Amino acid sequence: MLIDTLAIVGVGLIGGSLGLAVKRRGVAQRVLGVDSQPAILDHAAERGAIDEGLLDLAQAAGRANVVVFCTPVDLIVEQILAVARDCAAGTLLTDTGSTKARIMHCLAGRLPPDVAFVGGHPLAGSEKSGCEHADADLFQDRVTVLTPTRRTDPDAVERTAAFWGALGARVKLMGPEEHDRALALTSHLPHLLAAALADLLPPELHELTATGFRDTTRVAAGDPALWSAIFLQSRSAMIDAVNRLQDRLTDFKRAVRAGNRAALHTFLAEAKRTRDALGS
Amino acid sequence: MLIDTLAIVGVGLIGGSLGLAVKRRGVAQRVLGVDSQPAILDHAAERGAIDEGLLDLAQAAGRANVVVFCTPVDLIVEQILAVARDCAAGTLLTDTGSTKARIMHCLAGRLPPDVAFVGGHPLAGSEKSGCEHADADLFQDRVTVLTPTRRTDPDAVERTAAFWGALGARVKLMGPEEHDRALALTSHLPHLLAAALADLLPPELHELTATGFRDTTRVAAGDPALWSAIFLQSRSAMIDAVNRLQDRLTDFKRAVRAGNRAALHTFLAEAKRTRDALGS
Repeated sequence: MLIDTLAIVGVGLIGGSLGLAVKRRGVAQRVLGVDSQPAILDHAAERGAIDEGLLDLAQAAGRANVVVFCTPVDLIVEQILAVARDCAAGTLLTDTGSTKARIMHCLAGRLPPDVAFVGGHPLAGSEKSGCEHADADLFQDRVTVLTPTRRTDPDAVERTAAFWGALGARVKLMGPEEHDRALALTSHLPHLLAAALADLLPPELHELTATGFRDTTRVAAGDPALWSAIFLQSRSAMIDAVNRLQDRLTDFKRAVRAGNRAALHTFLAEAKRTRDALGS
Repeated sequence: MLIDTLAIVGVGLIGGSLGLAVKRRGVAQRVLGVDSQPAILDHAAERGAIDEGLLDLAQAAGRANVVVFCTPVDLIVEQILAVARDCAAGTLLTDTGSTKARIMHCLAGRLPPDVAFVGGHPLAGSEKSGCEHADADLFQDRVTVLTPTRRTDPDAVERTAAFWGALGARVKLMGPEEHDRALALTSHLPHLLAAALADLLPPELHELTATGFRDTTRVAAGDPALWSAIFLQSRSAMIDAVNRLQDRLTDFKRAVRAGNRAALHTFLAEAKRTRDALGS
């Protein structure tokens, strides 16, 4: 796949890594970066993640064949709607947001007929943020989920899949609601629990934490604004996931109160089997 | 500190690491290992973690000046009571169990007057188990908590502290109940949540997990039997900890339902501050 001009909107960890990956693999002739802060664009250009930085999103979108929105999930819809009519016919729009149902729903039927949007979510990231932590191999051998609906142009889906494939990602198609329910369990609930554990820790117990606590809470160092938006954009999937976890905790308390060693062992053995299957 | 004969009861990850650390630092002239499985003793001897393996706990205890019980928390009390009368006058008994209140309570007033027990808990470990993962540096620069009560002989506490200090550990004294309440938050609740998250993951979602899920659930690979015993030995501290976590989850659901971004942001920002303070 060779893109003439690619625009990356939001040059943080994900957008910066995307730029580095695209440049290293020669997937686009020219990479435009869009951000609201000139210093971030300068830094991204110095790192070689973008060829040119622009503060004006509409201008970048008008020049690009493909635009990837790597901005927080609560900004993506309004940014797309703001520039869709500035795009040339045939422009492909996609994103990297961690929630998909609301974005797909809000954009349905609201784009010009010759501009396509394909929702995307690379399952890669870090508790670190900012282009300074960008990594050209961030997407290599990782899954990127695309969430077309029945209304999504199949050619656009194919182009988006080819784009991520060219960056070394394994592409998986899912419905947007299915994606959100799955990610609530695999990413958003773990984040919530990590944050809740960190939040319960008083300062005087810091010295009593060991590697287990550090591993379990690592993602709680993520950006609070990004994660507030993710939780709010996937409310019903998150609430379902929390309810399922709370049921498990209630079962646990019942087993502990009853001294039911067999029930605890079964629960922990199942969990170990699952965790062992995931590898390190 | 120089011990003439040290006995290590249970030569798994912790016992094996203790043997390696003691041998490397020359803390004991002779290290006896006690285990129920000859193959484990042979392996520990080959790795240099022990000088001699014994299947008979009473025999080892009778020859040792210091006996460290590195067995599962639900076995420690009965093992100590079984051999206390075989120990020579002045023998120091200690342990490495992850729970302390019940052990201290069950042993109170039941040991011969010339044999002392000091509860201990090195805050080091791994989701891996077995002497094959033993590490001579496991305790280096890590906290070991000792949990004397008013009935504990101060000289014995001092000897135990000197022993762990000689292995590079930082020794901290706490009451046994205080220890259990603290560890419920810093170790046992994280383990429970890791297990619950792993347990909620259906096989078809394995491919949708990324580093965040793997970090958050890493400890769920721990030994189910060991952890069942830990949970049952610290029931009231665990139930309190789970209740506190459930309150946080209820607050979270309320904020998400209400679309209260400010409340979510405050919660996540506090959690991030705590997590950042712990370092990687």
